[in-house]
Amino acid sequence: MGTVFWSEVLGTAMLTLLGVGVVANHLLGKTKGNAGGWLLINFGWGLGVFAGVYVAWQSGAHLNPAVTVGLLASGAEEYAPGVAVTVASTLVYFAAEFLGGFLGAVVAWIAHKQHYDEPLEPAAKLGTFATGPEIRSYPWNVVTETIATFVLVFVILMFGGTPSELGPLAVALLVVGIGASLGGPTGYAINPARDLGPRIAHAILPIRGKGGSDWGYAWVPIVGPILGALIAGGIFQIYPSANF
Amino acid sequence: MGTVFWSEVLGTAMLTLLGVGVVANHLLGKTKGNAGGWLLINFGWGLGVFAGVYVAWQSGAHLNPAVTVGLLASGAEEYAPGVAVTVASTLVYFAAEFLGGFLGAVVAWIAHKQHYDEPLEPAAKLGTFATGPEIRSYPWNVVTETIATFVLVFVILMFGGTPSELGPLAVALLVVGIGASLGGPTGYAINPARDLGPRIAHAILPIRGKGGSDWGYAWVPIVGPILGALIAGGIFQIYPSANF
Amino acid sequence: MGTVFWSEVLGTAMLTLLGVGVVANHLLGKTKGNAGGWLLINFGWGLGVFAGVYVAWQSGAHLNPAVTVGLLASGAEEYAPGVAVTVASTLVYFAAEFLGGFLGAVVAWIAHKQHYDEPLEPAAKLGTFATGPEIRSYPWNVVTETIATFVLVFVILMFGGTPSELGPLAVALLVVGIGASLGGPTGYAINPARDLGPRIAHAILPIRGKGGSDWGYAWVPIVGPILGALIAGGIFQIYPSANF
Amino acid sequence: MGTVFWSEVLGTAMLTLLGVGVVANHLLGKTKGNAGGWLLINFGWGLGVFAGVYVAWQSGAHLNPAVTVGLLASGAEEYAPGVAVTVASTLVYFAAEFLGGFLGAVVAWIAHKQHYDEPLEPAAKLGTFATGPEIRSYPWNVVTETIATFVLVFVILMFGGTPSELGPLAVALLVVGIGASLGGPTGYAINPARDLGPRIAHAILPIRGKGGSDWGYAWVPIVGPILGALIAGGIFQIYPSANF
Repeated sequence: MGTVFWSEVLGTAMLTLLGVGVVANHLLGKTKGNAGGWLLINFGWGLGVFAGVYVAWQSGAHLNPAVTVGLLASGAEEYAPGVAVTVASTLVYFAAEFLGGFLGAVVAWIAHKQHYDEPLEPAAKLGTFATGPEIRSYPWNVVTETIATFVLVFVILMFGGTPSELGPLAVALLVVGIGASLGGPTGYAINPARDLGPRIAHAILPIRGKGGSDWGYAWVPIVGPILGALIAGGIFQIYPSANF
Repeated sequence: MGTVFWSEVLGTAMLTLLGVGVVANHLLGKTKGNAGGWLLINFGWGLGVFAGVYVAWQSGAHLNPAVTVGLLASGAEEYAPGVAVTVASTLVYFAAEFLGGFLGAVVAWIAHKQHYDEPLEPAAKLGTFATGPEIRSYPWNVVTETIATFVLVFVILMFGGTPSELGPLAVALLVVGIGASLGGPTGYAINPARDLGPRIAHAILPIRGKGGSDWGYAWVPIVGPILGALIAGGIFQIYPSANF
Repeated sequence: MGTVFWSEVLGTAMLTLLGVGVVANHLLGKTKGNAGGWLLINFGWGLGVFAGVYVAWQSGAHLNPAVTVGLLASGAEEYAPGVAVTVASTLVYFAAEFLGGFLGAVVAWIAHKQHYDEPLEPAAKLGTFATGPEIRSYPWNVVTETIATFVLVFVILMFGGTPSELGPLAVALLVVGIGASLGGPTGYAINPARDLGPRIAHAILPIRGKGGSDWGYAWVPIVGPILGALIAGGIFQIYPSANF
Repeated sequence: MGTVFWSEVLGTAMLTLLGVGVVANHLLGKTKGNAGGWLLINFGWGLGVFAGVYVAWQSGAHLNPAVTVGLLASGAEEYAPGVAVTVASTLVYFAAEFLGGFLGAVVAWIAHKQHYDEPLEPAAKLGTFATGPEIRSYPWNVVTETIATFVLVFVILMFGGTPSELGPLAVALLVVGIGASLGGPTGYAINPARDLGPRIAHAILPIRGKGGSDWGYAWVPIVGPILGALIAGGIFQIYPSANF
């Protein structure tokens, strides 16, 4: 269980380091990738997942409470080879994922420390850490996150039955695609640990010129992804093609 | 046959959800990927195919009546392992593909609901659902769609004989390439279900400020792709390299 | 030998169709991908190679006289499984590659016919067919093409010894990389058939408002690639890592 | 040992040729990829690694002193199959990597010779060869390079335990991701040979209108990557998931 814990901590930290990093590169002043565009951000997050999956392969590389919940809801008996689905193991995954999300954001901030010291509107500085909607409406924002996370978790569940050996590349490309196609309204958290961990980091770190951490929105990228994962797990159980 | 039906419905819906989604992200107001560019759109559609293929693997993941027609015209005996080519199975594929195309567009609209409520010229709102030509000329538009779909179907038919294990990635990249290279004039429907399904969704859904659904053009992305698929299947039958 | 001929014709036509197509999409007026950028062009050509390799797998998918020359110069005994290196087979490859390059450009023109009818400076219309230097200097242009083609052919020769199963994707990505990194000065012909075939098509086709076909430059993208291929084949023969 | 030497020389030269090339394409005047953007640069470097790995497969394709140091610090017994970790072999890797980095930059300069002759601020001409920080602060610049190189080396070390067959593509994509996410502040040297080799080339070559080679910064992209590699090797030794 210690292996699972540290595997998920480091894997999720790797994911969040690269993910927060690419948004920092795009948004913060004076970086070489400033205003690099949406496809750059999509590749940064997708390849963050890619790197994180290699780091956390021994624990099945969930890196995301929604993936853990989706496996649970799908009726899986193991979270990874040799790791049974229990209340205890579920909590270990959750704790490790959120801790990893927090630590990755801290390291991304350190890597861009001088650029965070440059003047920028507080909302943009927060935007490098946590997601936020372009048009605020909690119900619709939850809907968007639910749909995007459904795609993530359902396709990951289907990976198991498809004779393909792409492994970490498959989930990386899936995340690139979800970002390109469904990330426009809310910034595709699709992962509570990716959002809450960095948001806590934003609240704690001494970031120059930062504003509030938008706690009013913080529940959306938790509830939406969990809903999407539950729907994905449920449909997977009754989906004919899943009977492999 | 129920497995084939639901597999193709959900796979085509996944494809259309991500495909319509990326165009919505590019065109609609206030999205994070607004004006993200042609390569972003190409990756969004390509990775939509990628996700759809995983979802529909058990039915061979046609996701496209032109692929079904192309297999038929190539003289294949099975649409997927254990699914014989018959009139009934062909109709099941067609029905499922169009239904999936419709459903995916509905979900993409829901995911971007607030952004569809923003002001935008009606033609652009339609453009997130269905394809349209930059220079309207039905004969030439058919020609472009025929050529682009020939590339899609012929290369997919050739996949079968090539010792490569890329699987879903191969067709995803093929679609990225077709979009980059042959999508400029008509927006590369290359799939009747991808166009007609969302066009019906556009006609039915209560989209704020929408205009007409351009039914005068609707036959082009059906006839062009079917022609391209028939030519691909025919050439495949007499092509020496196909004798594997 | 008929199989080799038609395989290379169709494969090179596929490559040139998608390659000419992406430049047409980028340069011609009113296309959806207008001014799509250099990375779009790089992906279009790379994925053109990708599609062409699948189509021509049975003949080894040279698609390029420089690859044929490189294999010859490397001391290979076969051009493809069962296809011996002889004067006759070499000439068959050459003829098929140039014919395919010509045919692909014709089809790309047809697919973009209306956009070629739009006003545009003649040099840009030629630029969709054939390569041209940004700073004209035949010796330096030859040098650039030689270096870029050396990279292409040498790495392709090394593919044979590396335990990797990427197949068509490897050469596609290699071409993306060469375009991104070495295509800036001359437009990376790196393939005499990709340049001369479409240039002949440009000279023959009734393209509205076209100018000359720049025959003064036409020898550069033949001589440079052949030189690069000869150097690649020669170094390969004495390179320690090639002794696999 | 001669095989290792020439393998690493040519592989690192290939990497640096394509890497310096893409920055030249982006920065120098009158190139076709001028101002091509950050993602273009990320792909150019990533695919430079891709090509270099194929060329240097027989020596394990380090191409980077930080990778060599990381393997050493991880407690590996071999640098490549049949190549024991010794003082002598370590020095051979180092020498070959720096020589390759130098040679690749020379060839990239030759390939873009005329574009280097165009007027451009001296700092930008240097920027095509060597990295430099956007905000100069040696301690923070070292920190950024250390973090980015840690990601590179740690994930490469983890590749060994993951059942994935992507091979050269995995490290190429990893480098794309590091560039997108952590390259903004310092330009992601993450490889002493990639920086010092080309910097020496810049100092020696008769580049028109060049300025100084910024030797004051030259130690940063050596010390940062070595620190990152040592940390990666150290954590790898105590990391539970590494016990494969």
